[in-house]
Amino acid sequence: MTKVKVFTNILKANDSLAQKNKKLFKKNGVYTINLMSSPGSGKTSLLERTVDSLKDELKIAVLEGDLQTANDAKRIEKYNIPVTQINTDGACHLDANMIDNALDFYNFKELELFIIENVGNLVCPAGFDLGEDDRVVMVSTPEGDDKPIKYPIIFRKATVLLINKMDLLSYTNFTLSKVRGDALKIKPDLKIFEISCKTGEGLDGWYNWLRKKVKNKVTS
Amino acid sequence: MTKVKVFTNILKANDSLAQKNKKLFKKNGVYTINLMSSPGSGKTSLLERTVDSLKDELKIAVLEGDLQTANDAKRIEKYNIPVTQINTDGACHLDANMIDNALDFYNFKELELFIIENVGNLVCPAGFDLGEDDRVVMVSTPEGDDKPIKYPIIFRKATVLLINKMDLLSYTNFTLSKVRGDALKIKPDLKIFEISCKTGEGLDGWYNWLRKKVKNKVTS
Repeated sequence: MTKVKVFTNILKANDSLAQKNKKLFKKNGVYTINLMSSPGSGKTSLLERTVDSLKDELKIAVLEGDLQTANDAKRIEKYNIPVTQINTDGACHLDANMIDNALDFYNFKELELFIIENVGNLVCPAGFDLGEDDRVVMVSTPEGDDKPIKYPIIFRKATVLLINKMDLLSYTNFTLSKVRGDALKIKPDLKIFEISCKTGEGLDGWYNWLRKKVKNKVTS
Repeated sequence: MTKVKVFTNILKANDSLAQKNKKLFKKNGVYTINLMSSPGSGKTSLLERTVDSLKDELKIAVLEGDLQTANDAKRIEKYNIPVTQINTDGACHLDANMIDNALDFYNFKELELFIIENVGNLVCPAGFDLGEDDRVVMVSTPEGDDKPIKYPIIFRKATVLLINKMDLLSYTNFTLSKVRGDALKIKPDLKIFEISCKTGEGLDGWYNWLRKKVKNKVTS
């Protein structure tokens, strides 16, 4: 019982900080994404592709979350956009307080799109609102097609599902129709893109979706 | 501070139950493994291969852990060994209490090898002793070769590292020497096997290691 009560208090404190972050993003018309997946599904590769393709038309910044290392931030740094790294030092997800502490690094008046890459984990990040507009969850074909039914919570709270590593599809026993069907049962209006961050397949649809979202946010 | 204190208490309670589980395994001469990885690295495929290959020479049982579904237990059931499924209902790891509650299902006097498949998660399971003899951590080649340096805790506490999906190695940019080097820096005596649960490559070494461990436990 004690455990449950403390966890409820932690979530309450998190929600109030998430609202604070959300207000800041809204005030500045910055569309914000919370990007989540298992370790190694391809979140940072997606960010590299996305930043490289859109940085001349949209003002983008990235916030990287990881237990250890600044490796992911270094991968983004070479595109000359604002990026910083949060190290959770063992913690399994980002929370709104970590985001709040990192926001001073950015000049939100100068931004349109802010992408937060969460810790690689298909369970814990689902419980913590960071103040984002939308959650994007990614799975990759070699992980197998049972992820939506085995980890439903993270899919239920997502707006977009990215199915990555389509270039490896034919080497796996991943059935696209099963993942699409299971995911849509959990979240009927989930937007699904089949992509490969290696070959670029399917990324145009994702970019167009992002463009629309940023435009709506800026003008809202 | 409250959060830290409660977490310490939870870990203390967990350790005392883990010791209870450990005593039961020891009394019955049952060698016990805690198998951990990201979602979709191939834990259940490894169990299917291992059980199928060794069930006629070793008395094996399996305990499956997942947030939802009994799918993994169903995959093991067809080999006619004792298997049961724990659903954590959203929790991100197994703990010693969950194991303790499930042990009545098994007749440990009749067992030699007990394998616990943890929830797919490279972070949280590392913190919770279940009473196992050894921890086995698995990574797969499509996940990328940065997992040991990004998730060092789970590697530090492992006895064995299984590098799975070697059949996909040539389609990825996974560098074996990097993973081996990084993992051995974290845990110098880590035993590493390169395997493919799809083709069977490298599994003989893993089976021989298991045979030796079971023999040592039974006769100790």
